[in-house]
Amino acid sequence: MMDAFDSFIHGLKPQLVSWRRELHQQPELGFLEYQTTYKIGRELESLGFKIHVGRDAVKSESRYGVPGDQETQEAEKRALEHGVPSEWLERMTGGHTGVVAQWDTGKEGPHLAFRIDIDALPILEASDHGHFPYDHHFHSEQTGVMHACGHDGHTTIGLGLAHLIAHFQDQLIGRFTLLFQPAEEGGRGAKAMVDQGWLDDVDQFYSGHIGINPLPVGTIAATTQGFLASSKWNVTFRGQSSHAGMKPEDGRNALLAAATAATQLHAIPRHSEGVSRVNVGKLTAGNGRNIIADHGYLEIETRGESKAINQFMQKEAKRILTASASLYDVSVEIDFVGETEPMHCDDSLISSIENQCKESTWIAHIDPVAHVSGSEDASFMMNAVQANGGKATYMLFGTSLPANHHSPSFDFEEDVLPVALAAYAHTLRGGNVQ
Amino acid sequence: MMDAFDSFIHGLKPQLVSWRRELHQQPELGFLEYQTTYKIGRELESLGFKIHVGRDAVKSESRYGVPGDQETQEAEKRALEHGVPSEWLERMTGGHTGVVAQWDTGKEGPHLAFRIDIDALPILEASDHGHFPYDHHFHSEQTGVMHACGHDGHTTIGLGLAHLIAHFQDQLIGRFTLLFQPAEEGGRGAKAMVDQGWLDDVDQFYSGHIGINPLPVGTIAATTQGFLASSKWNVTFRGQSSHAGMKPEDGRNALLAAATAATQLHAIPRHSEGVSRVNVGKLTAGNGRNIIADHGYLEIETRGESKAINQFMQKEAKRILTASASLYDVSVEIDFVGETEPMHCDDSLISSIENQCKESTWIAHIDPVAHVSGSEDASFMMNAVQANGGKATYMLFGTSLPANHHSPSFDFEEDVLPVALAAYAHTLRGGNVQ
Amino acid sequence: MMDAFDSFIHGLKPQLVSWRRELHQQPELGFLEYQTTYKIGRELESLGFKIHVGRDAVKSESRYGVPGDQETQEAEKRALEHGVPSEWLERMTGGHTGVVAQWDTGKEGPHLAFRIDIDALPILEASDHGHFPYDHHFHSEQTGVMHACGHDGHTTIGLGLAHLIAHFQDQLIGRFTLLFQPAEEGGRGAKAMVDQGWLDDVDQFYSGHIGINPLPVGTIAATTQGFLASSKWNVTFRGQSSHAGMKPEDGRNALLAAATAATQLHAIPRHSEGVSRVNVGKLTAGNGRNIIADHGYLEIETRGESKAINQFMQKEAKRILTASASLYDVSVEIDFVGETEPMHCDDSLISSIENQCKESTWIAHIDPVAHVSGSEDASFMMNAVQANGGKATYMLFGTSLPANHHSPSFDFEEDVLPVALAAYAHTLRGGNVQ
Amino acid sequence: MMDAFDSFIHGLKPQLVSWRRELHQQPELGFLEYQTTYKIGRELESLGFKIHVGRDAVKSESRYGVPGDQETQEAEKRALEHGVPSEWLERMTGGHTGVVAQWDTGKEGPHLAFRIDIDALPILEASDHGHFPYDHHFHSEQTGVMHACGHDGHTTIGLGLAHLIAHFQDQLIGRFTLLFQPAEEGGRGAKAMVDQGWLDDVDQFYSGHIGINPLPVGTIAATTQGFLASSKWNVTFRGQSSHAGMKPEDGRNALLAAATAATQLHAIPRHSEGVSRVNVGKLTAGNGRNIIADHGYLEIETRGESKAINQFMQKEAKRILTASASLYDVSVEIDFVGETEPMHCDDSLISSIENQCKESTWIAHIDPVAHVSGSEDASFMMNAVQANGGKATYMLFGTSLPANHHSPSFDFEEDVLPVALAAYAHTLRGGNVQ
Repeated sequence: MMDAFDSFIHGLKPQLVSWRRELHQQPELGFLEYQTTYKIGRELESLGFKIHVGRDAVKSESRYGVPGDQETQEAEKRALEHGVPSEWLERMTGGHTGVVAQWDTGKEGPHLAFRIDIDALPILEASDHGHFPYDHHFHSEQTGVMHACGHDGHTTIGLGLAHLIAHFQDQLIGRFTLLFQPAEEGGRGAKAMVDQGWLDDVDQFYSGHIGINPLPVGTIAATTQGFLASSKWNVTFRGQSSHAGMKPEDGRNALLAAATAATQLHAIPRHSEGVSRVNVGKLTAGNGRNIIADHGYLEIETRGESKAINQFMQKEAKRILTASASLYDVSVEIDFVGETEPMHCDDSLISSIENQCKESTWIAHIDPVAHVSGSEDASFMMNAVQANGGKATYMLFGTSLPANHHSPSFDFEEDVLPVALAAYAHTLRGGNVQ
Repeated sequence: MMDAFDSFIHGLKPQLVSWRRELHQQPELGFLEYQTTYKIGRELESLGFKIHVGRDAVKSESRYGVPGDQETQEAEKRALEHGVPSEWLERMTGGHTGVVAQWDTGKEGPHLAFRIDIDALPILEASDHGHFPYDHHFHSEQTGVMHACGHDGHTTIGLGLAHLIAHFQDQLIGRFTLLFQPAEEGGRGAKAMVDQGWLDDVDQFYSGHIGINPLPVGTIAATTQGFLASSKWNVTFRGQSSHAGMKPEDGRNALLAAATAATQLHAIPRHSEGVSRVNVGKLTAGNGRNIIADHGYLEIETRGESKAINQFMQKEAKRILTASASLYDVSVEIDFVGETEPMHCDDSLISSIENQCKESTWIAHIDPVAHVSGSEDASFMMNAVQANGGKATYMLFGTSLPANHHSPSFDFEEDVLPVALAAYAHTLRGGNVQ
Repeated sequence: MMDAFDSFIHGLKPQLVSWRRELHQQPELGFLEYQTTYKIGRELESLGFKIHVGRDAVKSESRYGVPGDQETQEAEKRALEHGVPSEWLERMTGGHTGVVAQWDTGKEGPHLAFRIDIDALPILEASDHGHFPYDHHFHSEQTGVMHACGHDGHTTIGLGLAHLIAHFQDQLIGRFTLLFQPAEEGGRGAKAMVDQGWLDDVDQFYSGHIGINPLPVGTIAATTQGFLASSKWNVTFRGQSSHAGMKPEDGRNALLAAATAATQLHAIPRHSEGVSRVNVGKLTAGNGRNIIADHGYLEIETRGESKAINQFMQKEAKRILTASASLYDVSVEIDFVGETEPMHCDDSLISSIENQCKESTWIAHIDPVAHVSGSEDASFMMNAVQANGGKATYMLFGTSLPANHHSPSFDFEEDVLPVALAAYAHTLRGGNVQ
Repeated sequence: MMDAFDSFIHGLKPQLVSWRRELHQQPELGFLEYQTTYKIGRELESLGFKIHVGRDAVKSESRYGVPGDQETQEAEKRALEHGVPSEWLERMTGGHTGVVAQWDTGKEGPHLAFRIDIDALPILEASDHGHFPYDHHFHSEQTGVMHACGHDGHTTIGLGLAHLIAHFQDQLIGRFTLLFQPAEEGGRGAKAMVDQGWLDDVDQFYSGHIGINPLPVGTIAATTQGFLASSKWNVTFRGQSSHAGMKPEDGRNALLAAATAATQLHAIPRHSEGVSRVNVGKLTAGNGRNIIADHGYLEIETRGESKAINQFMQKEAKRILTASASLYDVSVEIDFVGETEPMHCDDSLISSIENQCKESTWIAHIDPVAHVSGSEDASFMMNAVQANGGKATYMLFGTSLPANHHSPSFDFEEDVLPVALAAYAHTLRGGNVQ
């Protein structure tokens, strides 16, 4: 049995690399993954999965931080130009992306769910020699957007898992749900899948990430600790423009309000009870050099090791934003656009994962737990599964990284793809193989 | 004679209003005034002026702050779509806009130059009831660009002056140069016309502005005092991106460098020897909420009542920009993109203007001098004319203003248009009428 | 007559230098001028002036910014130790300093008032070779207090004027009031003398300053323009201390509130209608390195060319102080401790001063007007005199300055002392000499 | 045996309370503990300990952050006035405080060292009803200095331990060293005792703290985890004063440099590898309201869970301080005045402490480990002992706290005193009792 999985993966490896590079070349931002959704949906449909696309996959009003009309429409136009059929696009318009794919063996057995995140980041990819995707001609074709967090790899692994399930269907029992989730960046998409009910009767939930910690290819971590609660806000300051030379005293300076808020937010005190984070990742303000700026805009996030710490960060941040507006006599509007929860992997899955995965020739070493400090909206899914009595984990798949996640030179070793696929595949042996 | 000028203007008034509204509807940013240049050039050519367009009118390398290729090409494409013939566009591509129009009577007499600025501002025009251009359906058709400083009026006055000169050509002596200058905002276009040599043998130079000070329609100021020396810079900070949750300590935060620089620049000490100004009018930084920003960008200006005061401001600003970069361990690049000089009107023109203009029925009152505090790159032209022994002035043309210059609700009374035209026209009587 | 004044001053010159050096050595802060008041009072009483000391000279409740009990009592103790008789001290306790000295010739004639400021500054005097008072052994004996604004010179000139009046008493007519005012620094003492009624029937008011502008010894200015309205505040922030290592999140940081307020105050926009100023001159906050600071304290001032501009500055400053407190969730208390008004010298005094002073051999040159930009609470006196129909001026007395006013190396040429005395003395000839 | 210790402590309890209140009433800052040192030294000498006082106890040049001459001399004068004999004072002048007390039983056995910190903090003690020391009339008699960290309790426990050792001397074996350390606050005194050699041959080292974590009286922690590496700096900015009204542009503003540094330091990024801290606990700048401040002074500290993290904090802080100076064109001087190391208790002591202490009737519960996040210069002693092969721990002694450590209302339950003494006493049973 085991040999069969491993050797199937061996045969699939060139296809994995090929998928990954195609995906890397066409990165799409969260809730704009029209081409990616189509690519996944078409593939899984042809394999025999029952698929739920776009508006069916996500609960529309549970999405956080959907892009504005202009951006959405441009992405839809581009999707059409890139060959997405209009009947597919109609199921997705207005930022309804993602695919939920179900496979029911018809035989009694556990219900396993795998979550795969598919979105990219607003980063201009490096175009230097030495950057592997550039040297091998598959760097981003969409200027300013980049798979700089490895979700191209994740999507590839999900496609591979779907092929494996379809291939070995006769030997499997129970049910499988593959959640190809949009908009993981910013913690915006997971809750919309949870609220659509897909996790309601899941027995075991698996998700994971390539990279994150510096582990070699072949090493995986069965569970992770340390993902942070987080909240994401967009903030708009509105003041009064005026001619900066002739009437400086008549302006109410929204640029300086935004700038002051940015520095002050980063000075929120550290918290003695655990990890906290704050970041102002984007600031735009003002129109022209000689005009007192009448608007300022921030994209910020806070994080905390616990919900309580993150609530402390949010309380501080709100007061600082309001006071910064007051410093410059401008107004402020704070929009909540995303969140993640703290999450805790079930320790009981560790031995099960160890037992199955140690048999794989792809997997050299299994760490029981890895310590991390990002945020993940898989937390909504894990907490939902666990609330219903299921078990959940979030794994890591080792690869060296030439640069940090979210940096223009991010890349990973493609050899991690079969390893991660093997890890997911062997979990089936815990109860879903006859 | 005088009656003839005034009554000609009376007949031209509906045309003035019509020109103004067409121009207001199609505002163009500095060095992108392709449609405006074509409109002016075609009109003056048809009147019999010798015209010099675009690359002929401005010295290419003396332009400050020319927009980037993408913005330029988009504007050129738009110009073609709006009917600018390609043979005209070829003379202007790459941000070479503006028209110099010459009329030589062939008779001995003074050489008069009039400078007309034609560019608009990056401001989203108000679309409220009560905003005259909106209520009368001639507000900007180009979103985010607006004639919010009255240059649509100035261009109209220049067109009117050209018609008047052509109409009364038989009664005139001497020579006339009309400089339809691009990119006054930011102090970017005047020097490029000066360096092309158009001001080399000018005897009298006239320019002016509608509005600025709260004078009623019918009142003009013969001279102005207080225009400030200024300098304009674009500033780029470059740092290192990193995942804000997982590796905050690895980022070098260009957003906070830019934000800190902005607040610190506004705290440059006041100067005891005269007026100073500083403004950060635009700030953009960062790509995404959870990424430490690796770039920040500022558009700033400094001003001073004298060159020495502005140099003090520049010295302070440079140190602050460099130190702000150092605070966050990022690099900084400072690009000089525009400047104006202090300027001094010739008092000797006051009595001459008073004597001519008091005869006009359009002009109710003439202030000898108005006190202002903006900046004008007409200063380069005035200083060039005066350096060659000519006389120069910068006038004001009164109108009430519902909102400050450079604000989204800026507007002026259209009755100022014939008044300003009358003021320019009557100056001809000082020596250029037989 | 004139020769008599000039030669009397010639004879007095060594005494002037001696007084100045004694005063320089014993500088006293505003409302703590116990020794200085005694020295002046005793001297003028012995000359035959009718003197009003301390509590009689100033209206107690009209004083701004009186030092606290501890500081006051220390100064009183020091005064006793330095030989101020207890019966004198009793008239002054609790910060009631200053002397008003009156001389009535008994003959009909104008009532002239001269205002002399007597206080020093909280500055540690330079002790470098090259600093004249140090090299000549008369630098401050009170560490951290210094006559760094020339009020030792002013007091000397006042003493000289008193001697001259007493000496020439038989030749004089009318009345003379010499106001030796405490606490000019900070605009704290003048109003208290005005409110006591001393200026109610004054025909001509004279005050002045040595230095300020770079004029040579022998040159005086008959009037000044540009003294600014000003307001002075003490600001206290109160937060919550906490251990910075163990519970940083429990602190409410008053130090950072004060620090942020300081930088933000300096960024108040410049005003297009005239000169403005703001300064945070002192900041103290916190107790210990590892404790979140629970208090912060600022001493600030704002200035404006007009009352309206200063009111703009005050409005901005109040909002900034309140918002800075809010940024850090601390409270703020704003105490008003001093003010000055704009002031305008009577032009009509220029010719009179020129006519008298040009006859003096001490005075080489008279500028009709000098342009300055400080603040002076003599403004309260001038405005009071002018409101009652009197005339007033504020003069300058030229001297080179090795360093700016209010710097540790401030000093002046002692030759200015007879010049300034001559200027005051010769004004008597405008109507008070038989 | 055990009963004997516990009942001795029972009898000593009123004395413990009495010592604690006397000490609380006479708090002394670090390296100024003249009265405290004398009180301890005299007491232990009378018990028969061999004592080493002041200059003998600490290595003079290894002390960090010794107060200035003026402060030191005032404290010495006060000590004389409070009855410290001059022959004792001579051993301590110039900030050489602390006592090392040795007891050698003459019998073979382990060498135990106990560290007791004795200094107070620059905090104005609360004088409210409800504050126990105020209600019971033993609050601080020295305004602005307070035992707000419980070192009065520590000193009391040390005195009690000395009495116990002396009382039970016949039953003890081995050697005992009691280190009454000055200047724990700021991490300034421990290294000076280490460098004097007192820890060179210690087998077991014990120190501890009352409070810190919210444990009930009767509960102790055998070890602690989480004490942070730290560094302490004094920072001086020097600029140029100038009159803020007349010559603002001539000033170089050291107040704003200090204020900017303060806010910027608090914005140093959090570190993904562990706990970090930064605090600016004190800021003083400027002399007078209308003078541009020519000096600014900060007292700051950084902390890190590891040496590497604290080095990151130090690197950031240095750059920020230098760049803040550069922002305002002022100079900066950074003085290193204290440090602590990370420290790790020996797990092997846990069972030994548990075994001995569980027998005491004073001790209800023993936590094996407590998690904390302050800094302790006991780290130098622990690391020295461990480097020589000894064992070391730092314990906690539970008490409720009405307010945080280092706050004006700090207090503890006096019932913790016998508990802590019992904990130390029972450790003797691990090998030092016959």
